[in-house]
Amino acid sequence: MGNWYEETFDGQVRFGLKVRRTLHSNRSKFQRVELLETEFFGKALVLDGLFMTSEKDEFFYHEMIVHPALCAVRRRARVLVIGGGDGGTVRELMRWPDVEQVVMVEIDGEVVDVCREHLPSIASAFDEPRLELRIEDGIEYVAKVPACSFDVVLLDGSDPVGPAEGLFNESFYADVKRVLKPDGIFGLQSESPVLQTDVFQAVQKTLRVLFDDVKPYIGSVPLYGSAMWSWTLARPVGEVFPLDTEPLHGLEAELRYMNRELCKAAFVLPTFVRKLATGV
Amino acid sequence: MGNWYEETFDGQVRFGLKVRRTLHSNRSKFQRVELLETEFFGKALVLDGLFMTSEKDEFFYHEMIVHPALCAVRRRARVLVIGGGDGGTVRELMRWPDVEQVVMVEIDGEVVDVCREHLPSIASAFDEPRLELRIEDGIEYVAKVPACSFDVVLLDGSDPVGPAEGLFNESFYADVKRVLKPDGIFGLQSESPVLQTDVFQAVQKTLRVLFDDVKPYIGSVPLYGSAMWSWTLARPVGEVFPLDTEPLHGLEAELRYMNRELCKAAFVLPTFVRKLATGV
Repeated sequence: MGNWYEETFDGQVRFGLKVRRTLHSNRSKFQRVELLETEFFGKALVLDGLFMTSEKDEFFYHEMIVHPALCAVRRRARVLVIGGGDGGTVRELMRWPDVEQVVMVEIDGEVVDVCREHLPSIASAFDEPRLELRIEDGIEYVAKVPACSFDVVLLDGSDPVGPAEGLFNESFYADVKRVLKPDGIFGLQSESPVLQTDVFQAVQKTLRVLFDDVKPYIGSVPLYGSAMWSWTLARPVGEVFPLDTEPLHGLEAELRYMNRELCKAAFVLPTFVRKLATGV
Repeated sequence: MGNWYEETFDGQVRFGLKVRRTLHSNRSKFQRVELLETEFFGKALVLDGLFMTSEKDEFFYHEMIVHPALCAVRRRARVLVIGGGDGGTVRELMRWPDVEQVVMVEIDGEVVDVCREHLPSIASAFDEPRLELRIEDGIEYVAKVPACSFDVVLLDGSDPVGPAEGLFNESFYADVKRVLKPDGIFGLQSESPVLQTDVFQAVQKTLRVLFDDVKPYIGSVPLYGSAMWSWTLARPVGEVFPLDTEPLHGLEAELRYMNRELCKAAFVLPTFVRKLATGV
């Protein structure tokens, strides 16, 4: 038997998963947190009714948000992650031996606790000594941290509704730029150019006001019910390209999605996406 | 108001569209043929309950099935299309001035008629003098055509159920190889590596038995409710690469998805897809 759990986009498109059972369902201080056991995707985290990550496809998203950003910097000693409560982004970061410290700032401790309990293959790096896990508001955190504190900032947030809404505006991006070193990199998930066209376009435009160079890249996230997902790299000063993908060489045997060639090919955009992102 | 129309994959995942109204619904000699006006995708063709193409996203699929194949051959005078009843593949082929004749063999004349009536932006090339449109079984057609008749064969078929089932087996592929010139190219849609993993893998394996070189490539088709779609090129004799993408230069202003860079980048596969396709 089992029920269907569905996510609906603007009341026009919906994506549903057959659910065997619900392992957790609670309203935290910030959002509804659910952990479902689905037929196709294995266990899946759902926040405020939006599918976030699943055992089956989490490597698509996490390898895509982490590795291109780390190929875009020479120094990657200090990394800040905003959001990322499931732990997958931190897990991918810890594959890099020259990452000395990761500060992860997640607003909702319940997400971390639920993922530790039910998604141990994703939340596998929370006990790493190189991790400083802070349960607090990422917007307030970047507002108070000294300038030039990080080599890399990754924004691994939800859609721009609920607690993640403030992660999509210019004042937050300006603080990210401030806490980054000038030759550092800001990497973020930037929604679907197909289903969230307006958000994708607004993120590109806002980033281009603040950063010298902004380069979106695309790939797949099956759980997001959309044919195409995007992430973006933004450089405070100078160009994003060329990426140095050679450091990926030693990691490739562990990775399931990313490889040296794809790390470059993902930045080659379909024409309509390029036009959305740059206007030309 | 409106209803939801849903496609379900193995009873585990479903993808639904809000429908304003049904413009056509009939059981043809071969399959159920429906034409829906949807909120998000505009008008959409549905065969046996499977979403086939839509006004909004058809260019993703049609530009991806046609242009890489045509960049893989030096001569493209004679092209055979099996299936493709909506007309989008023929429309893309007709952009190429050196295509002298396209033979399109579609089993179900009702699909062609419905698309001519309701999807004129897709079915826009059916009156081209370079087109020979045949309403007959594509499997029987390739079995009777003389050897070495075509420079390019494109298989633009449905999922391997119903009338398209015979388009996914070795004896059909052997006939395709026979009707192709040795330095010609076979291009086909090869399903989703995520939702139809077994079919994707079986198609690659079967093609590799018959053809010298087989190269899958990936992209997006939002209407197929899957994060990733695949197409494949197969060369009877010799290698598929390198592709000569220069002829695309003159077409790029008309295209919305494909461009010279993407025509190469689409062949760079995520690691797990490469392993599914080649075993290594």
